[in-house]
Order: sequence, then structure tokens, then C-alpha cells
Amino acid sequence: MEGKIALEEHWESPDFSATGSHDFTDAQYFEAVQKRLQEFDKRIQDINKNGIETSILSLTQPGIEGITDPERAIKLAKQMNDYIAEHALSKYPHRFKAFAALPLQDPKAAGDELERAVNELGFSGALINGYSNIGDENTAQYLDEPQVWPFWERVEKLGVPVYLHPRIPLPNQQRIYEGYEGLLGSAWGFGVETAMHAIRLILSGLFDRYPNLTIILGHLGEGLPFTLPRVEHRLRHQRAETHGNHQKAPMEYLRNNFYLTTSGVFRTQALLDTLLEVGADRILFSVDYPYESMEEISLWFDSCPISENDRLKIGSENAKKLFQLDSVKVEK
Amino acid sequence: MEGKIALEEHWESPDFSATGSHDFTDAQYFEAVQKRLQEFDKRIQDINKNGIETSILSLTQPGIEGITDPERAIKLAKQMNDYIAEHALSKYPHRFKAFAALPLQDPKAAGDELERAVNELGFSGALINGYSNIGDENTAQYLDEPQVWPFWERVEKLGVPVYLHPRIPLPNQQRIYEGYEGLLGSAWGFGVETAMHAIRLILSGLFDRYPNLTIILGHLGEGLPFTLPRVEHRLRHQRAETHGNHQKAPMEYLRNNFYLTTSGVFRTQALLDTLLEVGADRILFSVDYPYESMEEISLWFDSCPISENDRLKIGSENAKKLFQLDSVKVEK
Amino acid sequence: MEGKIALEEHWESPDFSATGSHDFTDAQYFEAVQKRLQEFDKRIQDINKNGIETSILSLTQPGIEGITDPERAIKLAKQMNDYIAEHALSKYPHRFKAFAALPLQDPKAAGDELERAVNELGFSGALINGYSNIGDENTAQYLDEPQVWPFWERVEKLGVPVYLHPRIPLPNQQRIYEGYEGLLGSAWGFGVETAMHAIRLILSGLFDRYPNLTIILGHLGEGLPFTLPRVEHRLRHQRAETHGNHQKAPMEYLRNNFYLTTSGVFRTQALLDTLLEVGADRILFSVDYPYESMEEISLWFDSCPISENDRLKIGSENAKKLFQLDSVKVEK
Amino acid sequence: MEGKIALEEHWESPDFSATGSHDFTDAQYFEAVQKRLQEFDKRIQDINKNGIETSILSLTQPGIEGITDPERAIKLAKQMNDYIAEHALSKYPHRFKAFAALPLQDPKAAGDELERAVNELGFSGALINGYSNIGDENTAQYLDEPQVWPFWERVEKLGVPVYLHPRIPLPNQQRIYEGYEGLLGSAWGFGVETAMHAIRLILSGLFDRYPNLTIILGHLGEGLPFTLPRVEHRLRHQRAETHGNHQKAPMEYLRNNFYLTTSGVFRTQALLDTLLEVGADRILFSVDYPYESMEEISLWFDSCPISENDRLKIGSENAKKLFQLDSVKVEK
Ligand SMILES: [Zn+2]
Ligand SMILES: [Zn+2]
Ligand SMILES: [Zn+2]
Ligand SMILES: [Zn+2]
Repeated sequence: MEGKIALEEHWESPDFSATGSHDFTDAQYFEAVQKRLQEFDKRIQDINKNGIETSILSLTQPGIEGITDPERAIKLAKQMNDYIAEHALSKYPHRFKAFAALPLQDPKAAGDELERAVNELGFSGALINGYSNIGDENTAQYLDEPQVWPFWERVEKLGVPVYLHPRIPLPNQQRIYEGYEGLLGSAWGFGVETAMHAIRLILSGLFDRYPNLTIILGHLGEGLPFTLPRVEHRLRHQRAETHGNHQKAPMEYLRNNFYLTTSGVFRTQALLDTLLEVGADRILFSVDYPYESMEEISLWFDSCPISENDRLKIGSENAKKLFQLDSVKVEK
Repeated sequence: MEGKIALEEHWESPDFSATGSHDFTDAQYFEAVQKRLQEFDKRIQDINKNGIETSILSLTQPGIEGITDPERAIKLAKQMNDYIAEHALSKYPHRFKAFAALPLQDPKAAGDELERAVNELGFSGALINGYSNIGDENTAQYLDEPQVWPFWERVEKLGVPVYLHPRIPLPNQQRIYEGYEGLLGSAWGFGVETAMHAIRLILSGLFDRYPNLTIILGHLGEGLPFTLPRVEHRLRHQRAETHGNHQKAPMEYLRNNFYLTTSGVFRTQALLDTLLEVGADRILFSVDYPYESMEEISLWFDSCPISENDRLKIGSENAKKLFQLDSVKVEK
Repeated sequence: MEGKIALEEHWESPDFSATGSHDFTDAQYFEAVQKRLQEFDKRIQDINKNGIETSILSLTQPGIEGITDPERAIKLAKQMNDYIAEHALSKYPHRFKAFAALPLQDPKAAGDELERAVNELGFSGALINGYSNIGDENTAQYLDEPQVWPFWERVEKLGVPVYLHPRIPLPNQQRIYEGYEGLLGSAWGFGVETAMHAIRLILSGLFDRYPNLTIILGHLGEGLPFTLPRVEHRLRHQRAETHGNHQKAPMEYLRNNFYLTTSGVFRTQALLDTLLEVGADRILFSVDYPYESMEEISLWFDSCPISENDRLKIGSENAKKLFQLDSVKVEK
Repeated sequence: MEGKIALEEHWESPDFSATGSHDFTDAQYFEAVQKRLQEFDKRIQDINKNGIETSILSLTQPGIEGITDPERAIKLAKQMNDYIAEHALSKYPHRFKAFAALPLQDPKAAGDELERAVNELGFSGALINGYSNIGDENTAQYLDEPQVWPFWERVEKLGVPVYLHPRIPLPNQQRIYEGYEGLLGSAWGFGVETAMHAIRLILSGLFDRYPNLTIILGHLGEGLPFTLPRVEHRLRHQRAETHGNHQKAPMEYLRNNFYLTTSGVFRTQALLDTLLEVGADRILFSVDYPYESMEEISLWFDSCPISENDRLKIGSENAKKLFQLDSVKVEK
């Protein structure tokens, strides 16, 4: 279909290797990915070819979140946001939008930068790569922790969505991966880390306090459509003080405060499960470019067995409403 | 429906608190569970009421696997197996079967005990509660590790299935649960721990070496029907030496070496996803009694929107074939 | 759930036996149905009990459509509409709405009566019981025939939906039912007759000429979610002049000009198929009272495995939008 | 996938125009179809290309069933069966099998011919094109009528399946198609005619008397997975003597005495509904060649979102079991 909006589409500046080193990833694949991360003109051809009208760009993981020095994180986040504004948004204003990179190591600075990015640079919200390292690589700050709530208050006021993107589990929490380091990233670790992070947000009571917050999860909700009903079911029997201050059933938040994207998952069976758990109004098309092939995901999505009404919503209408995007006439 | 076989049904001896302490679980709920864990006569009434013909019993988690001293584990496993043989199987031979508890801390002893349980006590296989602690509670042995392979060789020769049951993550790997300890058990930690354990088995090449091994996973495969396709998809881009010696695509093992049970999950949407990933021949009914209500699961299963042909398979026929059970006339 | 809108809910005046004789229906069942058809106060209790906020009433089939004398049809339609306005709508204005009965035997008079019913009596649209007999019981006028188009032009201007309700096939077209007369009505004949009638409307080009027409079909679209894709597929190979003047693919009309209700069908499998063909925005809850039990349909709908977001739409939101209904506080 | 069995694959002899005249079908399409109907060598290439191991051939509709003179029907059926045996089966014994054409106008002769075809020519059962004309084209004999039961007795004894294939409704029963003759055939009339014919068989009590009869329906059961649950539901309220002598619920017969094929329907949504109503053991792959493209159906089937376990069953295993086919090594 034409007119798709894609919103987990990554970039990287030649100045800052946002992904860090990649011991477990195939070198040839990673090289090709890195090249495309840093490039914008060829992207325009690719999104044209695949019926994508607008691509919302985000700094690839772990990016700013992996910087242990808060001061450096603050400085680098600004620099990155300015870079993408200049190199992509100003050149292709209707085709590229952006999520801000934020220095969550300092929640106040993160809020300031989000305001600047949205109000001055015209960004569409923020993409946060999971927990932030503070001080050292084994020290993590999750987004439901109390010091981060003032940040969320400002997000709600700004009225923009936050994309919660994966990163790999903390180095000292990788015992179960020993011997299978290839599972640490997108294959497995990304998903369980991010699903649990989202559960923390849900259970914390954050959405009770800031009910208009909107979180976007990739990879069909990191499995939560399948696994969260069991969380909800089993928490019935756990002591209340062991699972946060949430006021409602976990699935209610997933259906009302979250959007789930198709990034990197082209599995119809999983999409159907997602559709039956959150409904088509809460699902958004995405690619996870350049880690995934635009063509592979688009071909799948354009023909997967859902109603054309839902395809239109998931592919385009939901995102246009969420980001207040006007349709543009794409000249190819 | 009548004639159901249930196979994640737990017990506990008054002599050995198999579950250990339960800080995060509701005290009243846990007390009720514990009472029913230790009881067999009332169970017969309950399984009768809910159309369950045969219940395959297993020592509740973490049981033997949580004993850090291998000698004690060996001794206690025997004792437990003898106990259930005497108190349940001999009294209700057609209605109760059992999975052996095994001291995996010593794989040779585990194999010996499995042979004894199957050949002498008439057990139906084994149920293993995840990793085994060895020496201390932060030291774990996963079932794909090389020293365990001789055990698997004997399992394959015996031709009995092994139920891989959850336990909570290692104490020093619980950083992400801080503040949400209620998630450590059945709500969340059980699932990700066990799913990853199963993935280790799959990727290790174990099923290439012992292709006739049969593993049973509870809780609709611990989410793997939804999440394993992405594992398979993303491992394409990870260096081969980082994800085990498996010869086939991960999903092939899930479809051919695993059975997935409905224990503790009565979510039709997730069942449909499972059905579309592994097919009805690979799904088995189970309750997870007494943690779950026999009635709640049975009512759901008996009326969930699958074909009656599949209901019969999942509820009864698949298990009867797998365990070579003869149908018995239940006198109520 | 509370707040449901039901819109295939039938009534009958004691003055006019709208259903005619019922040779094949169980006498006891029919007697009970007829009693409830003529009654409104008890209905209020029933809809309260089942979480139904508003019930849109319609004269039961074949009603006016089965009257072979156009003059009598015209007179009786008015009489029936006045009756229900007085006995139900004026007494329970927030709980009962109505679809007009129309004398399609005279399309001009049908349009006049629809305008009167909508503008003067506050009706919500019309319900048409299939083809109209003209002159004798084997002479039928289908709604796509040219003489009916001026009626549709007025319907489009009025901006109200038309519910296309079943009636049994023409007497001289019942050869295949010989020996199985029990299939003539709701069991089978209703469905194929109405599905084909809807296909005639679709293929005729009516919706190309009057693109804002909205048709409602009961019984999950009379099977069309399953069968219309094949119609579309096979018409590719039939000569253009043999299947009407439609400009678009048949499924496009089904998704955009039709709403499908759950009346009389509480089959989750069929609902899922419908959801995957037209999307949740195009499905509406309904009971088909008193032929069906409000309780049976409501219990099923309230717990069938769709997302709560979609349940809300199908049960309530879609209908409130379509009929511009304000939510009312139900005092029970 | 390789190894598929296809079983609604039609042929025609140059001596007998089995399809008759085709006013509503596109002339160019029909010419191409007819050419391929009469050809066998090119088919071998096509089935090789599409992973089809064995194709079970049947005389195209209405074939023998449309011959009003019983004597001619008897003679022609034999002639056709001999023709296909000689021109296809003897030349490609492992790749082509056949369903017999039968003169149901004379049930005794039909039984004789079936025995001859199965026992002497090695046929796999019979394919019957709906009702048989007797005397004139408006006189029909349905297969549930009493005079046909002795035929069914012999079918059951022979232990072969009967494929119930569509034909268009009786000429004097086409009032509802007026103006839309293109719907008479595969687009719509085929389906409702054949679905109702199958319902007659189900309700008649035939399967209570001959419980081992196996009927195959094409086109995903002609819609019955969606529509038969409503038949069952509504017959509750019809007088018993109006719907045959069946002893069990209609859906039970559909699940136990029928197989449903994918012929001509490549709609995943409808396949999922079918899977959830009858289970994968009761679904069979088929093309409906040459009316459909082998490639189009195969591509869809080989990648549609069902489990590989079910794909294997539906594509190959179920048919091999039903027809006792040995796997053959296909040399291409
Ligand atoms: Zn990504
Ligand atoms: Zn358990
Ligand atoms: Zn009705
Ligand atoms: Zn055919």
C-alpha cells in the first residue's frame, strides 16, 4: 500500500558510533547496516519504492542511554538532534520526521532537550533506548524510577509519544546467555529486557498519574500481547506491595497507553494475536530499518490477511492521527 | 469434556517444603495451595468434577533442583518419588500418574533415578524445575550444558518425555525486578527464565544428537509461539559461533521435539497463536493445580473456540498417545 | 459490558401478524416469541439485565414486504410506524429507537414514509425484509432494480442506514428445500437469500451512484465475510455484462458501505473471520430478540476473545456514532 | 512445499463437452481452460513446478450428471472412465489418480461403475457433480433421496471417498440470479447449491446409517465452516419432521464424515475459520485446475500462516492416508 508511515527507522552520525561494538553480530551484515544508518538520500528512494510516505528517524541503540557520563550524554544528545534536523529533516521535511535522543541520565536535562527538539526543531516525540547507564555500565536507571517522573510530567504536557526501544540486558545480568551471546540483542535479550521495562512502567502507577502518556513499543509489543495476560492473571496472587502502585489491570494500560509497531516482526500469527489483544487502532506499521529490509516488511504487511480497513489504519491512519501528519503527495 | 489428561499437576510432601519461602506471594493464597499440594483424596473428587481422567503428578518447584548439596538432592529425589508412588499411584493407579523428581546436580544419579522411577515405579517421565543449583544458590547448571548430555542420552533410550518446568531467575540476576518482586515467579520471571532455558536446549544441538527427545513446556510454551519466530529471524545475522550447534531452524525443534501445555493460561487469543505455530497435535491440556483452579481452566478449555476435533486431541488423545495411556472408565 | 446498543430487535403489533403462518417452526417456541414480540415493558427489564442501553426496534419479517397489494402495504406501514412510536418510543425515548417499516412495493411511497418516520417520528432509519412481493407471492422486487433507485437517492439524502433483513426464498424457488422445510427460514434460507440480495446491491452499481448509502446486514453479514472473497475472485472470469455495473471490487463495498451485526450468531470463529475481513469498525452488536435470547448472546459477546477496545466499538461506540446516540445513564 | 496431493483437478475428453455451453463465462478464459482440460503431458510439468506429487483427476462439471437420458449417462460414464485410465493413469501411474464419473441417474448402475472403476481401473473414489438431471433439465435427483441409499451402501463397502462437486442451480430456480447470470457458476451459485446439497446429506440421516462414508467438499467446504453452526443453532427451534432423520448435531458430521479442500479459495481468513471449525486433519489441499492457476494456489498455500505441521498434513499427509498413497520420488 501507498502512504505508509514507518516509525522505528534508525540513523547514526559518523561522529558517534551509537551502537558500540558488536561482538556477536555478523560483521558483513553489520557493516552494511552501518553504512545505511548514516545515509539519507538513498533512503528516500527506498521508502518511495516501498510505499512509505514518511519515516520517523531515531538514533540507533543504545545511543545516548549507554553513555555513563551524564554531562557527555547531555551534550551529545543535543548534537545528535541538531545533526538529524539539519541533514534529514530540513532537506526532506515531508518525508522525514524525527524522535529526539535524550539524556535520561539527567531527567531534567532530558525534559529540556525534548522541549527544545519538539518546539524548536519540530520533532515528533522521543525514542528512548531502555535503561540509562549512570556512572558505570552495570548501573541502570529504569524509566519508572521516581527521579524520572518529573520528566514524564513534561512529556505529558508536551503531548508527544515516547518510543521505548530495546537495548541489551546489563552486563552483569547475562548469566543465562553464557554460551549463547548471539541471543543478547535483537534475537532475544532486546525483547525480554524491553517487555519487562514496559511492565515496570505499567505497574508503577505512572499512567495513573499521567494518564495521557503514550508509549510506543516495537516488535509487536515485545511479546506482551501474548505474555501480559498471564502477568495480569498471576499478579492476583502476589502481595500488593510487590508489584507497584497501578490502579488498573495491566492489560488496560497496554490497550490505552501504548501503541505497538510491527518493526522487525513479519509473522502473521503474532500480528493476529496482537490484533485480538489491543485492536487495530493500537497497532502501527514500522520497519526497523536498516536492521530489517524495507521491502521484506512492506511486502508482508501489504498482503497479510487482515481487513483492508485495518491495513489502512495500521499502515497509515493511526500514525497520521497520532503525529498529526498531513498527507503529502509523494513525487517519485 | 470428559476424559481429559492433565500433566502439570503438583504435589509436595509434608516432609519437604519443596517451594521454599514465598515472600512475594499472598499468604492466604499460598496456605491454601500448600494444603492442596499435600492432599490426594480430595483431588480425585476435583478431577472427577472437571472431567479429568488422569492427572500426572510432579513435585512442585523448585524442589530438588533448588538443593545446593548434590548428595542431599540424590537422596531426597528418591524419597519423594517413593512417597508419591506409595501415597498416590498405588491408591489410584488409573487416575494418578507421576513425573519423577531428579537430582540433576549429578546427571549420572539423575539418569539412574529416572530409570528406577520409570522401570520400577511406573512413572511417566520426569519433570525438571529449570536450572539446578550446585554448591550455592547463584551457581546454576542449565540442561544444555555438556555434562548433562549423558543424562539426555538415557532419557532418549527410555523413551519418556521430560517436562521443563519454571523456577525463578538466579538471585544475582534479579536487578530488573527490583521494586517488583511479585514478578519474579509465575507472573513473569518463570516465563522468561524457562523460555530462555528451552531456547538454550534448542540451539545447543541437543535435538540433533538425540532427535527422539521430547520436552514438554507449560504455559502455552512460555510465550515461545509468539517470540521464537523472531529469535529464528534475527539469528540469521548473528555470528554462528554465538548461538550453539543446532542444525535446523529453531521453530522446527519447537514443532517436532516439544509439546506445549495450557497450564495456567486460559487465554484464547494466545491459544490460537499457539495453534497456528505448532498445530493441535503438539498442544496438551494441563491445569497447574493447585496454583490454578481446575474448574476455571476446565471451563475455559471445554468451551474455547477451537474445533471439537482439536479439543479432543489437546484434551485427551495427544496425551494418551504420548504416555500410552489406556482409557479408563471413571466411576464417580 | 454495559452500554450496548442492539439493533436487530423485533416487534409485532397484535393487529397484524407480521410473520404469517409458521409451518416449520416449533409451535411452543413460536408462541413464546410472539408473546415477547408484542410486549415492551418486560423488554426494558431484560435489556437492563443484559447491559443493553438502547434497543432499535423493527417490525418482524416479512412484515410489510410480504403484502402483495401495494395500497395495503402503504397504509399498513404507516400504521405500524405510528404504533411503535406511540407504544415504545414515546414511553422509553432513551431506551427504544426504531427502524421504519416501508412499503417498497411503491418506492415513492416508501421514500415518503421513511422521511415522515425519520423527520416526524424520530426514527433511526429503516429495516427492509428482503424482496417485496408485488401482485402475488411469487413476484418479487429486489432492491437493486431500477425502479427502486429513486428511493435510495432519498435514503442517501436523509443520511440514515437501512437494515437489510432476511425473509424466506420465493415459494416457487424452494425445490432444493423439499423434504427439509425447516431450512427455509433462519437456519439456512434466510442467509442465502439475503446474502445474494446484498450481492445484487453490491454488483448493481448502487453504491457507485450513491456512495454514502449505508446498509446493515445481520447474522455476521449472512456469511459474506467467508463467501464474498470467492465471488470477487471468480467474477474475474465472467463476462462483464453478467454481473452488474459496479466499479470497484465487491469486498470494497462490503468494507465501506456495510455494517455487519452479530444478531443470532454467537460463534467466535465466525466473528474472527468477520473481524479479519471488515475490521472492528464495521461490526455491530445485535441480538435478534426475541428469536434469540438476550442473555445467551450478551454472555457470549461480553466474553468472546477480542480486545476490549474492539468490544467497546462493536458493542457500543460504532452504533452510537452511526446513529448519533448520546450515552444515557441507565437507571435500573 | 514438495509432495502435495491435489484432488479437485479436472479433465475433459475431446469427445464430450462435459461443461456444456458457457454463456456467462469470459470466452478467452474458457477457451484456455478447455485446452488444458484435455491435456495431460503439460500438466506433469506444471505439477512438477508447483510441488504437486499426485493429482487426482475428475471429469469436469456437470459432466455425466447433466445428461437427462440415464442410458446415455451409463454408457458415457464408462467411456469417460476408460478414457482417463488409458490416457492419464496408465501413462503416469504415480502422478495421476482418478475419481470415477458415475451415472447417478441410475443408482444401481452408478454403484456398478464405481466398483469397476475402483477394482479394475484402480480409481480412488468418485466425484459427483451435484444433483443429477433425470428426464429433463429441471428434474433433479439429490443424493440424499431414498433411491440413492443403496448406492451409498456400496460406497461404504468399497471404502472410497466421494467428492461432492458443484454445478449450477436448476434452470427454473434461478429467479434471484436474473440480471446477474455471472453469479450462477463458481462465483456464487456453485457454492450455495453444493452447501445445501451437503446439508441435505447431513440432515437425512445418511451418515447415521452409513457412518463410514467420507464426503469431500471443495472450496473450503462451500462456506459451511462459517454457515453450518447457524444451521445447527436454528434447527433447535424447527419442528423435528422438517429437517431429516439425523441423530447428531450437524457440525459433528461435518467434522467426522467430511474433508474440506482448498480448491479455488486462497483466502487465509477463511482457511483460519475452517481450521477452527474442523481441525487440520480434515482439510486437504486442492487447486481446481485448470479453472484456477496451480501456481497461484500453491504459492498461497506454501506460505499461508499456519504451522508447518498443519501445512504438511493439509498439503500431503491427510490425503496420503485417506487414499493410501505411497510417497513417490518425483524425478523432474
Ligand atoms: Zn530498532
Ligand atoms: Zn507449575
Ligand atoms: Zn431478525
Ligand atoms: Zn472444480
